[in-house]
Amino acid sequence: MQRKMKVYLAGEIHSDWRERIENGAAQSQLPVVFCSPVTDHGASDNCGVDILGPEEDSFWKDHKGGKINAIRTRTMIVDADVVVVRFGDKYRQWNAAFDAGFAVALGKSLIVLHDASIGHALKEVDAAAQAVAATAEQVVEILRYVTG
Amino acid sequence: MQRKMKVYLAGEIHSDWRERIENGAAQSQLPVVFCSPVTDHGASDNCGVDILGPEEDSFWKDHKGGKINAIRTRTMIVDADVVVVRFGDKYRQWNAAFDAGFAVALGKSLIVLHDASIGHALKEVDAAAQAVAATAEQVVEILRYVTG
Amino acid sequence: MQRKMKVYLAGEIHSDWRERIENGAAQSQLPVVFCSPVTDHGASDNCGVDILGPEEDSFWKDHKGGKINAIRTRTMIVDADVVVVRFGDKYRQWNAAFDAGFAVALGKSLIVLHDASIGHALKEVDAAAQAVAATAEQVVEILRYVTG
Amino acid sequence: MQRKMKVYLAGEIHSDWRERIENGAAQSQLPVVFCSPVTDHGASDNCGVDILGPEEDSFWKDHKGGKINAIRTRTMIVDADVVVVRFGDKYRQWNAAFDAGFAVALGKSLIVLHDASIGHALKEVDAAAQAVAATAEQVVEILRYVTG
Amino acid sequence: MQRKMKVYLAGEIHSDWRERIENGAAQSQLPVVFCSPVTDHGASDNCGVDILGPEEDSFWKDHKGGKINAIRTRTMIVDADVVVVRFGDKYRQWNAAFDAGFAVALGKSLIVLHDASIGHALKEVDAAAQAVAATAEQVVEILRYVTG
Amino acid sequence: MQRKMKVYLAGEIHSDWRERIENGAAQSQLPVVFCSPVTDHGASDNCGVDILGPEEDSFWKDHKGGKINAIRTRTMIVDADVVVVRFGDKYRQWNAAFDAGFAVALGKSLIVLHDASIGHALKEVDAAAQAVAATAEQVVEILRYVTG
Amino acid sequence: MQRKMKVYLAGEIHSDWRERIENGAAQSQLPVVFCSPVTDHGASDNCGVDILGPEEDSFWKDHKGGKINAIRTRTMIVDADVVVVRFGDKYRQWNAAFDAGFAVALGKSLIVLHDASIGHALKEVDAAAQAVAATAEQVVEILRYVTG
Amino acid sequence: MQRKMKVYLAGEIHSDWRERIENGAAQSQLPVVFCSPVTDHGASDNCGVDILGPEEDSFWKDHKGGKINAIRTRTMIVDADVVVVRFGDKYRQWNAAFDAGFAVALGKSLIVLHDASIGHALKEVDAAAQAVAATAEQVVEILRYVTG
Repeated sequence: MQRKMKVYLAGEIHSDWRERIENGAAQSQLPVVFCSPVTDHGASDNCGVDILGPEEDSFWKDHKGGKINAIRTRTMIVDADVVVVRFGDKYRQWNAAFDAGFAVALGKSLIVLHDASIGHALKEVDAAAQAVAATAEQVVEILRYVTG
Repeated sequence: MQRKMKVYLAGEIHSDWRERIENGAAQSQLPVVFCSPVTDHGASDNCGVDILGPEEDSFWKDHKGGKINAIRTRTMIVDADVVVVRFGDKYRQWNAAFDAGFAVALGKSLIVLHDASIGHALKEVDAAAQAVAATAEQVVEILRYVTG
Repeated sequence: MQRKMKVYLAGEIHSDWRERIENGAAQSQLPVVFCSPVTDHGASDNCGVDILGPEEDSFWKDHKGGKINAIRTRTMIVDADVVVVRFGDKYRQWNAAFDAGFAVALGKSLIVLHDASIGHALKEVDAAAQAVAATAEQVVEILRYVTG
Repeated sequence: MQRKMKVYLAGEIHSDWRERIENGAAQSQLPVVFCSPVTDHGASDNCGVDILGPEEDSFWKDHKGGKINAIRTRTMIVDADVVVVRFGDKYRQWNAAFDAGFAVALGKSLIVLHDASIGHALKEVDAAAQAVAATAEQVVEILRYVTG
Repeated sequence: MQRKMKVYLAGEIHSDWRERIENGAAQSQLPVVFCSPVTDHGASDNCGVDILGPEEDSFWKDHKGGKINAIRTRTMIVDADVVVVRFGDKYRQWNAAFDAGFAVALGKSLIVLHDASIGHALKEVDAAAQAVAATAEQVVEILRYVTG
Repeated sequence: MQRKMKVYLAGEIHSDWRERIENGAAQSQLPVVFCSPVTDHGASDNCGVDILGPEEDSFWKDHKGGKINAIRTRTMIVDADVVVVRFGDKYRQWNAAFDAGFAVALGKSLIVLHDASIGHALKEVDAAAQAVAATAEQVVEILRYVTG
Repeated sequence: MQRKMKVYLAGEIHSDWRERIENGAAQSQLPVVFCSPVTDHGASDNCGVDILGPEEDSFWKDHKGGKINAIRTRTMIVDADVVVVRFGDKYRQWNAAFDAGFAVALGKSLIVLHDASIGHALKEVDAAAQAVAATAEQVVEILRYVTG
Repeated sequence: MQRKMKVYLAGEIHSDWRERIENGAAQSQLPVVFCSPVTDHGASDNCGVDILGPEEDSFWKDHKGGKINAIRTRTMIVDADVVVVRFGDKYRQWNAAFDAGFAVALGKSLIVLHDASIGHALKEVDAAAQAVAATAEQVVEILRYVTG
């Protein structure tokens, strides 16, 4: 492929896994373009009320924010060739699993990144994936291989 | 619609929410057909090795099981008009969120059922839903209304 | 076609056009199955808060109701062969025009029903239609012809 | 996303909302590309007869024009990531609502822009949207956030 | 397949090829359901003005009729498994070739029925077909074989 | 739209209509990219046997050629925004009508170009079109208008 | 699911695996409907020339037959929920692998049935499957489980 | 077409057919972009365990590798206009036939390249192709013709 492969990095926002993948790919000049959701937790939570005005009910605050975030995430998933979804062990990250399901239904290649310790809970997501990686470096190696 | 509406009930398997919805619909003779994943936890976990032979590595045990379960769940989601996804507060239920994402990408109507207490963690899933219900009875009322 | 043609009747809810079409088809035993949105104005406006609980802000009351109504209308449009959309001269009926656009994007045959007096304002909708009828009886005649 | 987000601006043509959005995005150098229908009212009304010859019957004049306009609008909606639809309070704008329905059926992100005063009449369109904005500036802020 | 195969018979309306196929299938009780466009030439030409009112300009008379006929033909092609298109040597039958192209783009199986004498002019249509038959009886034999 | 509109020019190969459209667009520097089938009649007829070897039976000669031509035409139609189909009065041009049907099924905008004298025979094709032009210059004007 | 699951049995025609699956399902009254390609080797090879007339060149004999067989197989795969593909060790069975790829691209659930001894050569096909079975009885157990 | 045609070269990895096609196209400066699977047999077999860690069971070694290879191949097939599949006479190449089926289901143009001696075994694959070539040079000629 002479065009670059488009990779969307979904999921956990509290560790440096995105940087490790992006840096690893950059160091090797892999023909890959990355994109991500908004990873600033506060901005992501508050975007709805910050932009469109306050809500008394936290449900609607969340609703306005969740919908605006979806403008970004769905556009990026639809445009991607590969979706990498990272699950950490501390948060519920239902949105990450939602993104994985959304991507698979559209025929995107899914790579799941998580520790073995949470593998059982993720078995249906892993079963839908093209690869289950334990480290960001493994994801870089997969991208190197498939674009090599 | 003179045909029945097809509703897939995804998610939590440790409470009686499916029975409450199905009984509620049956008592009112709503024109709705329900289907569900295999809700026997042990059978669902072990189906891969029970049918296709044992695995030493639990990852592959899970993998075989997760893939066989997907034969059922994807066929049912593809066939459904409406997907109801129930989230409880005790489990990670990443598969439920995955099913929700898969359903939305296919253009299915999504109804999410959960307690308000876990609403913030579910905000992206809720934002993709046509309705967010707190009780099984509310789901029955929605089905009564939309098929009325 | 040995199966019946499926026809969704969208739009105006304050005149008897649906009954006239359904009665006309029934009298001739046309092989057509009709479906419609909820046509009880009050029920349609209030379904969100009636089922899922009250809202202080009328925007969210409308939002909850609009989303629940869409469960019904989208399922029916996706399932339909033909979508008939009626526009009256008194209301804005943006939802009727929305349904028309939704149906056309899915490749459904669109029949628009309105008085000539409002034709100019409807020119883009009419331009996307397979037929523009002025009376319910003309719609019946079209259905008789295409299923004859 | 390293490519620019594609945004189609549908609806009202008698106020400066498009300019306000385009200028706002340009001032901040947002990575967004805008496109719009023909916004010259007379040209839009007359394009059919101006190009393809006169019609005695105004219905066919409108029909020829509506169809030619659709060449532009549908190509742009199909190509877009996001569709912004503006509703004013003076016109029926059924074509704007048609475009919104068309866009949603194709899975595009919809942003609706209107005053709160007409919100009830737009509740089904709003219910299908990812965001409901009251000002052009809010739309700019959404685009800034989702492309940030 | 335990359901019947759905076959749409498009094209020439001035010979008895449809009857020969339908009779041949009926005599052998093949599990096939047939459907066809309106084959009454006059009705097909005049349906637009007969139902929706007269036109002075023959172009618009044809336009109204052509669009109403498409309600039937597109619904049937979308619903079909197999589309049989018959070309005779006397008429231009551009609508038959249009139907063939429409069917192929939707992934339907195409069977073309024509005399060898007009084969060169039909080479692109034949090249898109699963079978090119010279007689109605051959079409019956194909249907017998593929449903056997 | 900041990208150029992609226009496929299908149909008649024995007059200068393509040059007139392409020259007209070039003179005005319209943001349009054109493509066309192979318009060398002999090359188009013989490509199959010229490349893949001779055939004794003219049917198979045509078949091999028709299939190779379809590699080009389908790739171009799938990639196009607008398909212009020209019908002359001398040839059967079933392939042109096939291309029109193929394009419409994919949701492309169709412009048909022909003399009024053959309008009745083309009524179903015209009924599926966004515009019916009588001259190449009208097609240029349409392209100017929709890209203006 | 209250409707039966539709299962297409592709591949090897020289052993009794289809009967073993169908009998196993019938004995347990599983809610499954099976369909298969024509499994009479001679009929399948000769259908083209038997129905449409002889060919001197064996390539065209095969071509006519292969295309007619595809009318049946593609209709059945498009209609199926699950595609089971059996590979034996004696034949090349490229058509079986073709059917597997066709099914996966359409989002069907794939079950592959083969001896472990040929697993390496089938690794890409197996990697696309929801289950890899070694015996017909395992396939029956999978169908029992997913329809239970 | 002013953009280059995208061609994916699938199948046999033990002869120089890819180089012959790529060199032939390069010498003539054809507007074609080629891409291919990983053609290093050892790397392709071992990529799963090389990147994601060893497996005791060769089935899972193959499975991990097959899935990673699919990230590359499916992305490339989805992106391609034309898929060329080469079959040699020494290997089973079920993955090549799988790729062919996958490509055809997505509507891609398929060119099959093989010796006449294995034509009968490939008859279903050939029947789905736009061209069946015997030499790499013929493939170059087809690409020259369709991009000419």
